[in-house]
Amino acid sequence: MVIDSHQHLMLPTEFQIEKLDKAGIDKVILFCTTPHPERAKTLLELKREIESLYKILAGSNTKASDMQRMKNNIQELTQILHKYPDRFYGFGSVPLELSLEDTIDWIDRYIVSNGLKGIGEFTPGSDKQVQQLETVFQALEQYPQLPIWVHTFNPVSLSGIKILMELTKKFPKVSVIYGHMGGYYWMEVIDFAKTVSNAYIDLSAAFSTLAARMAVAELPEKCLYSSDAPYGEPLLSKQLIEYISPSDEIRDKILGGNILKLIGEENI
Amino acid sequence: MVIDSHQHLMLPTEFQIEKLDKAGIDKVILFCTTPHPERAKTLLELKREIESLYKILAGSNTKASDMQRMKNNIQELTQILHKYPDRFYGFGSVPLELSLEDTIDWIDRYIVSNGLKGIGEFTPGSDKQVQQLETVFQALEQYPQLPIWVHTFNPVSLSGIKILMELTKKFPKVSVIYGHMGGYYWMEVIDFAKTVSNAYIDLSAAFSTLAARMAVAELPEKCLYSSDAPYGEPLLSKQLIEYISPSDEIRDKILGGNILKLIGEENI
Repeated sequence: MVIDSHQHLMLPTEFQIEKLDKAGIDKVILFCTTPHPERAKTLLELKREIESLYKILAGSNTKASDMQRMKNNIQELTQILHKYPDRFYGFGSVPLELSLEDTIDWIDRYIVSNGLKGIGEFTPGSDKQVQQLETVFQALEQYPQLPIWVHTFNPVSLSGIKILMELTKKFPKVSVIYGHMGGYYWMEVIDFAKTVSNAYIDLSAAFSTLAARMAVAELPEKCLYSSDAPYGEPLLSKQLIEYISPSDEIRDKILGGNILKLIGEENI
Repeated sequence: MVIDSHQHLMLPTEFQIEKLDKAGIDKVILFCTTPHPERAKTLLELKREIESLYKILAGSNTKASDMQRMKNNIQELTQILHKYPDRFYGFGSVPLELSLEDTIDWIDRYIVSNGLKGIGEFTPGSDKQVQQLETVFQALEQYPQLPIWVHTFNPVSLSGIKILMELTKKFPKVSVIYGHMGGYYWMEVIDFAKTVSNAYIDLSAAFSTLAARMAVAELPEKCLYSSDAPYGEPLLSKQLIEYISPSDEIRDKILGGNILKLIGEENI
């Protein structure tokens, strides 16, 4: 099974499935999205699409509007999961700044009840927002089957990554996926992931094949193939894994085995 | 002609040529290097190799030792150009902090006399070092045939990129290649390159295929294919260009036509 472990919902869904078929991907873990950059043909159109993302990152939306947006996005996601259960798993968003009780309630109501396999993507816009993940980690201690997916490329800084590492150590039952392998700080993230059992490395947005090759060489059981589509291309990201994997066995783990184990679906 | 417009010298050269042959690349623009990460099999070995690079970036070497290193590196490069003239062009290093007269003397002695086609890679470790490029730009006004290649990904900041844009505007006869398309600031670099005739975009180290696709859509005459090997893989970078190009004509320009024109070799 080839599993692209991180794609955002693209529209129309038929376009997304066509991409999977062309790339030889069996299933995808689908993440919510607000912008739809896959529709943009020019830079101007793209900027209009992702303006909403910048607003979210800058924290300029109200808490209430952010929560409503997440509920809508999860609903949109679950409709697609119901329609195409053989092609998609899903991860769902969880708001920051809720109390522990409300966070647990949200996870029950919107993640577990919908059969989602994990939570995220979190894209912290500041070190403070990374710190705010602590409540989410506390809540996840009760749901060890749900990994958390955190964006660790820009705008997340090295100090933000270090806060995340502290949380990862403090909550060893919580599986943490380091999205985009730490970006510029990929060496720090690889070194860290070798010291704890609950840190995983997402290989999307790799700007250096050398970095991805090192991650695979050092952590063949903990690296996860993904494309981050529509920001990356599923086929090209898959070709990267095929190119850098030192053996067919390791290639198959990175392309699907590791993530299936992580979300408890290894026996399908 | 397929031209990889930015690779570092890898050892042994036969290994580098084998990579070109496998990727279907006719010629490469070779850049000097001090570290040789292509030799590293583990992260520890890689760290040892690139320690020297970090020292250079941190400016902890003396000016004299930096100049001696550059001379040695250029000599190493020109030996390979002489041995394999049908596979390689070369760009050569120029020190910062020389007087205008000494900079011109260096360019004469080490770049022009050696038949090199441009200068760089410059990897400014601070905004101050970007500003110091002004003397080099002044010198290059006398050599409009020599493009300058500047790394614009981390550790170069947005303010560093803006200083480079000012220099690009101030010296319109100097062709400037924005290495790695501005990294996280790729939108700013694309927008800028649309407003001046002498800014070019290098597509290596692209962490988002969407970004590369936009650059190609907006600036088909100014985008340049490269792999930044050994940090990237020539074959995978070429597959990216083939995937995102909207037509065969544009693909051929990006894969070779544009850079051949820029270095005055379009009639070969």
